[in-house]
Amino acid sequence: MTAQLPPDMAQKILAGDRRSLARAITLVESGRADHRAQAAALLEQLAGSGRQALRIGLSGTPGVGKSTFIESFGMMLTAQGLRVAVLAVDPSSARSGGSILGDKTRMERLSRDPMAFIRPSPSQAHLGGVARRTREAVSLCEAAGFDVVLIETVGVGQSETLVAEMTDLFILLMAPAGGDELQGVKRGIMEMADMILVNKADGDLKPAAMRTVSDYAGALRLLRKRSQDPEGFPKALPVSALAEDGLQKAWDEMTALATWRRENGHFDRCRAEQARHWFEAEVREGLLARLHSDPAIRAKMQSLGDAVAAGQSAPAAAAAEMLGLLGA
Amino acid sequence: MTAQLPPDMAQKILAGDRRSLARAITLVESGRADHRAQAAALLEQLAGSGRQALRIGLSGTPGVGKSTFIESFGMMLTAQGLRVAVLAVDPSSARSGGSILGDKTRMERLSRDPMAFIRPSPSQAHLGGVARRTREAVSLCEAAGFDVVLIETVGVGQSETLVAEMTDLFILLMAPAGGDELQGVKRGIMEMADMILVNKADGDLKPAAMRTVSDYAGALRLLRKRSQDPEGFPKALPVSALAEDGLQKAWDEMTALATWRRENGHFDRCRAEQARHWFEAEVREGLLARLHSDPAIRAKMQSLGDAVAAGQSAPAAAAAEMLGLLGA
Repeated sequence: MTAQLPPDMAQKILAGDRRSLARAITLVESGRADHRAQAAALLEQLAGSGRQALRIGLSGTPGVGKSTFIESFGMMLTAQGLRVAVLAVDPSSARSGGSILGDKTRMERLSRDPMAFIRPSPSQAHLGGVARRTREAVSLCEAAGFDVVLIETVGVGQSETLVAEMTDLFILLMAPAGGDELQGVKRGIMEMADMILVNKADGDLKPAAMRTVSDYAGALRLLRKRSQDPEGFPKALPVSALAEDGLQKAWDEMTALATWRRENGHFDRCRAEQARHWFEAEVREGLLARLHSDPAIRAKMQSLGDAVAAGQSAPAAAAAEMLGLLGA
Repeated sequence: MTAQLPPDMAQKILAGDRRSLARAITLVESGRADHRAQAAALLEQLAGSGRQALRIGLSGTPGVGKSTFIESFGMMLTAQGLRVAVLAVDPSSARSGGSILGDKTRMERLSRDPMAFIRPSPSQAHLGGVARRTREAVSLCEAAGFDVVLIETVGVGQSETLVAEMTDLFILLMAPAGGDELQGVKRGIMEMADMILVNKADGDLKPAAMRTVSDYAGALRLLRKRSQDPEGFPKALPVSALAEDGLQKAWDEMTALATWRRENGHFDRCRAEQARHWFEAEVREGLLARLHSDPAIRAKMQSLGDAVAAGQSAPAAAAAEMLGLLGA
């Protein structure tokens, strides 16, 4: 990436130029201070575009067929004339780098579709960093005119919460399960779900999938009833990504829910609160970043920390000294 | 509490004066800026006392008999001439105020023992605040000459991690369980345990307790093997707080582990890293506190947040403006 942005970057993104979009996402993924400043300026220029995609969070543990689902679901949407962007939040990729190269081969047909745009998870050690960069990539995709932005995450740790906090709908993809098996999904994640899709509702697994759907439908209703949900939501539905079955029904339900929330004001209110949340999170992160980014501050943190570790100073007194130096 | 500390407060604490200790703990529990400054000064004066207690963290879900255990275990230690302080970290007390009044009645005999000192959990809404105050109370108890500081926590949320980060040994108290029952203890908490004590190893429950001990002994060895553990640790042992059985054996194992770690340098290294950790945590908290404590900053956060929520500004640009005002 060149250090200097072309002056017409914003215009090119608004015109839907994929290469500019990709470069802009690389820019927001950078941790360099000059890149951050350029990224902030670019996002501010694009903030007034007024374009809005439906942001869909999708979570599911490995093995539920997430890639196949995204491919089939995405191909169905693009066939209907919708432009689809797929982003990923995968904290594990920070360590292993594993899924980064895999993303495009995982979704071979969709990645060649001119109506689709697939971007792997940024490789950042810090989940908060991944979150900010993904959220900014969502804004860029919206400005570039995508109709649907799908944010995929693996069912691990806090990544679901982050994805739920940057999306309009949060969908859980599950596999057919036997009896009261819980598939390792935490209650908190179930509570965030607007919809559970039970995949692999085909062939021999169909009866098990249908039973799982009715189990989850009951569980969902017990777990959550929110004022921003119309009658019947949250919902559990069967799909088969492989047989491309149930996908239209799932999409219809998603758009029905989004429409209901738009009409009842929940949609905009939720987005406004999400934006405020991310602003506050960014201020907090920026404040804390000083402790690491400024060499003089970092050195002082180290020397005061050494004194505390050696028992020469109490943590409170050393912290007070440091905060005094920081002007806090 | 008076706003001004008596000038001989530190001397009185070092002399073991209980009333001064209690007042000093009230001081460190205060959130007022002038109290914080006084507390930091007092802790700094006492930092050089060179006194060290064995800090034991004790976690267990309600119903395992934690109060009875602390009472029996504490009485056994005081009978051996050891001075015992009991502190609590209970995030739930912030909301309910529930266990605060209960602490002394829960441990009736121990609370009347002149060799023991019991202090309930500070009522703070913020777990980080509870942690800092408890950690500072530990320092005060050490300066006051206590030999053992027991920090009790309920098995909820992050409180175990905080307690493990301020203690030398972390003990999990469990009830006898049938078969592969997990007692709602998370794997992460099991991994922190230096020792699991299975309580109620008496009467009808004794066989179940013994089976549970051997189940946990196996699980512990699978879960964790750290270089700071001698052969055979982490360990699971049966105790009966009610029958006062197995307590001496548990104490012998605790001191054996502490002695081994002291001789191998792990003990001091761990304390040094804990102290550094708390210093860094306090600096971070202090930095973030500015966002709420300063009315002008709070108002600006609100107005910039409003602009972001209204879509007039992008989170990154608003955050950059705020950070500029904060000099960060």
